[in-house]
Amino acid sequence: MSGSVTVVGLGPGSEAMVTPEATAALARATDIVGYIPYVARVPDRPGLVKHATDNRVEAERAAHALQMAAEGRHVAVVSSGDPGVFAMASAVFEALEAGPADWLTLEISVLPGITAMLAAAARAGAPLGHDFCTINLSDNLKPWDLIERRLTLAAKADFAMAFYNPRSKSRPEGFGKALEILKASCGDDRPVIFARAVSTPEEHIRTVPLTQAEPEMADMRTVVIVGSSLTRIVERPGLAPIVYTPRSVPA
Amino acid sequence: MSGSVTVVGLGPGSEAMVTPEATAALARATDIVGYIPYVARVPDRPGLVKHATDNRVEAERAAHALQMAAEGRHVAVVSSGDPGVFAMASAVFEALEAGPADWLTLEISVLPGITAMLAAAARAGAPLGHDFCTINLSDNLKPWDLIERRLTLAAKADFAMAFYNPRSKSRPEGFGKALEILKASCGDDRPVIFARAVSTPEEHIRTVPLTQAEPEMADMRTVVIVGSSLTRIVERPGLAPIVYTPRSVPA
Repeated sequence: MSGSVTVVGLGPGSEAMVTPEATAALARATDIVGYIPYVARVPDRPGLVKHATDNRVEAERAAHALQMAAEGRHVAVVSSGDPGVFAMASAVFEALEAGPADWLTLEISVLPGITAMLAAAARAGAPLGHDFCTINLSDNLKPWDLIERRLTLAAKADFAMAFYNPRSKSRPEGFGKALEILKASCGDDRPVIFARAVSTPEEHIRTVPLTQAEPEMADMRTVVIVGSSLTRIVERPGLAPIVYTPRSVPA
Repeated sequence: MSGSVTVVGLGPGSEAMVTPEATAALARATDIVGYIPYVARVPDRPGLVKHATDNRVEAERAAHALQMAAEGRHVAVVSSGDPGVFAMASAVFEALEAGPADWLTLEISVLPGITAMLAAAARAGAPLGHDFCTINLSDNLKPWDLIERRLTLAAKADFAMAFYNPRSKSRPEGFGKALEILKASCGDDRPVIFARAVSTPEEHIRTVPLTQAEPEMADMRTVVIVGSSLTRIVERPGLAPIVYTPRSVPA
């Protein structure tokens, strides 16, 4: 009775961005575990059991998946985007490490997906075409001080930056503070891309200069990308501008 | 006579990681432009013209693609991984900005792909499960000083780090210097993952503590991931260890 856990990245929303190996893993699974809207993306079929849970129960969900695998089930844990970027893969390994020793010999694999920042960058042009950093702006699981410190150092390093979870109803103020830090640290008017619900029917991309960026431009479905000091905007007649970071940094 | 350029991410190597929209774009193209081994991944078919070029001619290749689109061709520019991460998307936009004004109204799109660090992270566990940065270690297009500065600041910010192009025959020394900076800056023995040719038959993953990391462990097909101070290794009897970064940072 040898079960398995496969942590599957569903990409940002469009089925056209789901990898064939992810689709194949979902077709093989006996059980689907995940947050309600992601589980809903997996087509029903006879024999498939869906275990959809609400947000903020990642640890319990991960332990449940491992427990079912220990009982011989083939469990797919679904994440949007890439499961390894602020998603379910770390939660599964935290539960594995905290759990019974016999879980350690379970077959566990992670299938990567198109994470939101890559889809957002592709829509805008190529703002992450040079060195960049990726920061989760939620302070649910880390001290706010650390976020401020990372933003300041990232600006000093002149990284382009991608922000996940910039703003939610329960954390309305953090993103405003983050923007203030960036306005003070960057010292120029670099482009800020607000990419909402990329690759879904609600997709909306908007680029503004840093001085005009406002907290209300982001919500929990938005990924925010801030250019480096070298990021450029190419204006096009009648078309959306292209935002890209060149490959070269002059000496 | 309205042509187009689609910059297509082929993922790290396996066809199972190519998105359906990428496959569809290749099937629609009249011309494929790219580095020889990536162009070779696209199946031949009647009417499809392949323009395969050597490494280091990204600018010429990008201009050629735009020129053909201006002449009415539907050109797919292929990159491995994600075209927006140290790949062809920025080169295409550089050429667009430098080129004739009538190129600005061309239909241009970028299709994201599974970039090497995400595939490597998935194979190792979830080392990029918390805040991280992504740095190209090649100093072909930027001053080495900037790389050193970014490494030092990234260590100070306690980011996990992913390194592209860590080492090539023409740049044998940089990666050794980078490792010295990390050994001095990190002040602990965090895990370093050397992920070579992920998802190809030559795939090889090796994790060593930072103090034992040697420049010779990387080559130009390797992505290197360095954990943050919180990254953990889960040893498993008879199986490869799992390397992951927890979602939480204690206050």
